[in-house]
Amino acid sequence: VAKVIVNAQRILKLDERDPLRELRERFKLPHDEVYLDGNSLGPLLFQVRERLQHTIDVQWGQRLIRSWNESWIELPGVVASKIAPLVGAPPEDLTCADSVSVNIFKILAASLTLTPARPIILSLNDVFPTDLYISEGLATLLGAVRCKVKLTNLDQLEKSLDDQVNVLLMSQVNFRSGEAYDVKIITELAHRYGVRVLWDLSHSVGVLPVNLAANHVDFAVGCGYKFLNGGPGAPAFVYVNHELQQQLKQPLTGWMGHSAPFDFNPEYQPAPGIDRFLAGTPGILGMSALDAALDLWREVCLDTVVEKSQHLSRLFIEMVQQSPVLNSPENNLEIIHVSARGSQVSLRHPQAFAISQALIDCGIICDFRFPDLVRFGFAPLYIRYQDILTTTESLAEIMSTKRYQQSQFQQPGKVT
Amino acid sequence: VAKVIVNAQRILKLDERDPLRELRERFKLPHDEVYLDGNSLGPLLFQVRERLQHTIDVQWGQRLIRSWNESWIELPGVVASKIAPLVGAPPEDLTCADSVSVNIFKILAASLTLTPARPIILSLNDVFPTDLYISEGLATLLGAVRCKVKLTNLDQLEKSLDDQVNVLLMSQVNFRSGEAYDVKIITELAHRYGVRVLWDLSHSVGVLPVNLAANHVDFAVGCGYKFLNGGPGAPAFVYVNHELQQQLKQPLTGWMGHSAPFDFNPEYQPAPGIDRFLAGTPGILGMSALDAALDLWREVCLDTVVEKSQHLSRLFIEMVQQSPVLNSPENNLEIIHVSARGSQVSLRHPQAFAISQALIDCGIICDFRFPDLVRFGFAPLYIRYQDILTTTESLAEIMSTKRYQQSQFQQPGKVT
Repeated sequence: VAKVIVNAQRILKLDERDPLRELRERFKLPHDEVYLDGNSLGPLLFQVRERLQHTIDVQWGQRLIRSWNESWIELPGVVASKIAPLVGAPPEDLTCADSVSVNIFKILAASLTLTPARPIILSLNDVFPTDLYISEGLATLLGAVRCKVKLTNLDQLEKSLDDQVNVLLMSQVNFRSGEAYDVKIITELAHRYGVRVLWDLSHSVGVLPVNLAANHVDFAVGCGYKFLNGGPGAPAFVYVNHELQQQLKQPLTGWMGHSAPFDFNPEYQPAPGIDRFLAGTPGILGMSALDAALDLWREVCLDTVVEKSQHLSRLFIEMVQQSPVLNSPENNLEIIHVSARGSQVSLRHPQAFAISQALIDCGIICDFRFPDLVRFGFAPLYIRYQDILTTTESLAEIMSTKRYQQSQFQQPGKVT
Repeated sequence: VAKVIVNAQRILKLDERDPLRELRERFKLPHDEVYLDGNSLGPLLFQVRERLQHTIDVQWGQRLIRSWNESWIELPGVVASKIAPLVGAPPEDLTCADSVSVNIFKILAASLTLTPARPIILSLNDVFPTDLYISEGLATLLGAVRCKVKLTNLDQLEKSLDDQVNVLLMSQVNFRSGEAYDVKIITELAHRYGVRVLWDLSHSVGVLPVNLAANHVDFAVGCGYKFLNGGPGAPAFVYVNHELQQQLKQPLTGWMGHSAPFDFNPEYQPAPGIDRFLAGTPGILGMSALDAALDLWREVCLDTVVEKSQHLSRLFIEMVQQSPVLNSPENNLEIIHVSARGSQVSLRHPQAFAISQALIDCGIICDFRFPDLVRFGFAPLYIRYQDILTTTESLAEIMSTKRYQQSQFQQPGKVT
């Protein structure tokens, strides 16, 4: 086995002193595996399983339709109130509904409708694809006079801001490189040009501070199934600055966004606040799971989580750099360095797909991003410092033996 | 107790001879209650509970991210293939995604974009409100030149059809009256004027035949949580006639509708078929529940279900009519008669809210629709003929004693 040069004593100490160390046992995690895909799908919390049993057996199974009045109708607001402190928002400016894609559509459409003189949605070339697709879908629907999508790079951002730009759509963390963008600086920059900013927090909520209100962010959306551990396809959240809420008309005016949904009036009267960003009937199983998962944050301070997240990434990079195998030029493994990062590290290699498959084969659950990245997500609520050691050792073994070149790892396939 | 005139022997025989009688025990139903709200929220099937345990503990809890490739990514298509025979559609023309509201938006927007010379969405005054709200939301977004909503009554329908109408949006069953509209006749009528038809099957799927393909229906949407028993807020389904699919550009172009979602290309390339009507990441818990609930239909013939549904309604109406109490003019209870009906009956009374509350208080779970309707849903998979007897007896008791006038039943509240 190729050894990584490391002070094992030091790693053990880090775990012993980790103020979050006791949280790990709250998760159902596979034995003999290191799960580094919590940035794609967070694992199951035992409290979520318990809550789902209650939702299924008691709320649905016994109380049936009465559960709508007894608890479900309030659920979007309850979930929002638990996400609010993680993103620095007043609870009444946030709600939980639909998917990230659908919420981006609502926001962009509403913002363009409010200020039609500015038809451009500006984003970065490497923003998460669904954000881009949704922008293009809206542009196709509205036509070029009302909506155009323009893409730029971060270093060209200021040059691209002008009085034609309506919204700047940013992901706080780049899903490939792990780079974290500065919410405060970029929001201020956009505001200087009269441009609103929509932050997609999918890859950052729960591992980075956001401070939506303090940074005067206009809009934000985010995902419930990554670092929030809400379960596969958990509903998304949407934030709208309270100064804009009353003016905005989002087009997906489903009955749950009505001021009185159960009156069944023929005229749509939007709910007075953030509830107007609800659309159809919410999926209660998914939202209940997310609600229960968020209760973990009552016991956790975000600052501590952010600090551990950054420490895990730094340790991984340091160990890769110090490993004679991983650092050897012949192995051709490039660390993607960024000036600030979320809770993930990517390594570049022409055989990235095969390497990711070989790692999964020996229990290191990472993922591949086309064309040449292996992605490692470090979710601080359950990943230990010793997991970084295990990962680096496995990677060194795979690289030194070139085991990833075996044919069973070469087959390309779907990777989420 | 006020007696309803009935041949109890006859009721017992009906239950004994009911070919669906054994299905009831597959549902978790509250004891000592008659659940007549399956048209709002279907009850829990034990097989759904079992499937959810598997989804939670094994797929999410153990396989984690791998479950996307192993099963979840196929789920919208799997669910669609089980709904397809219930609505007479080829499985490849149907998919499962989002809510009914969101799917209506996709269809209307795509149809208007395809034929901009016809800007009108036509619907009935008493269509389900969310269908109307969504149409209005789209009209507000697109502006009056591109989209106008026009409402009419059924008897004025043909007069309202002209070369300005793009889509006729119909609910197959009226949510208040229970009236069922003729899919074949109305679709043909609209087609004579070059108008496409979007049928909302939320209140009919699983209790009425639809025959989407045979009737050349253009579009349909429907709900998973009513007669399909998919659970609270279960995802909806969407049908698009295969002749239209390739031409349509729906605007909610989330990554799941991309031809290769996991390639993360910056350009949106819609999936070749119905999958382009997917948007964001689907809620897997809700979709798994619906998938398991639909397996019941492997053992059931839709014709038998439809027949029992109609029989239950007829029996209820007959018993109300034959009851001296319920039929007495002083009790002022009016049966809402319709020429064809779904699986529900409504009674009109000025004190409908109080009556519904008094019924619920004695274990008859019905609901109220503003301003003056008590609604009784008869889900044939688990409602027995003897439940009709129990319901009518309770109603007669409440009306003869005027117990509904007690103050605890008078408080208006939310009713779903």
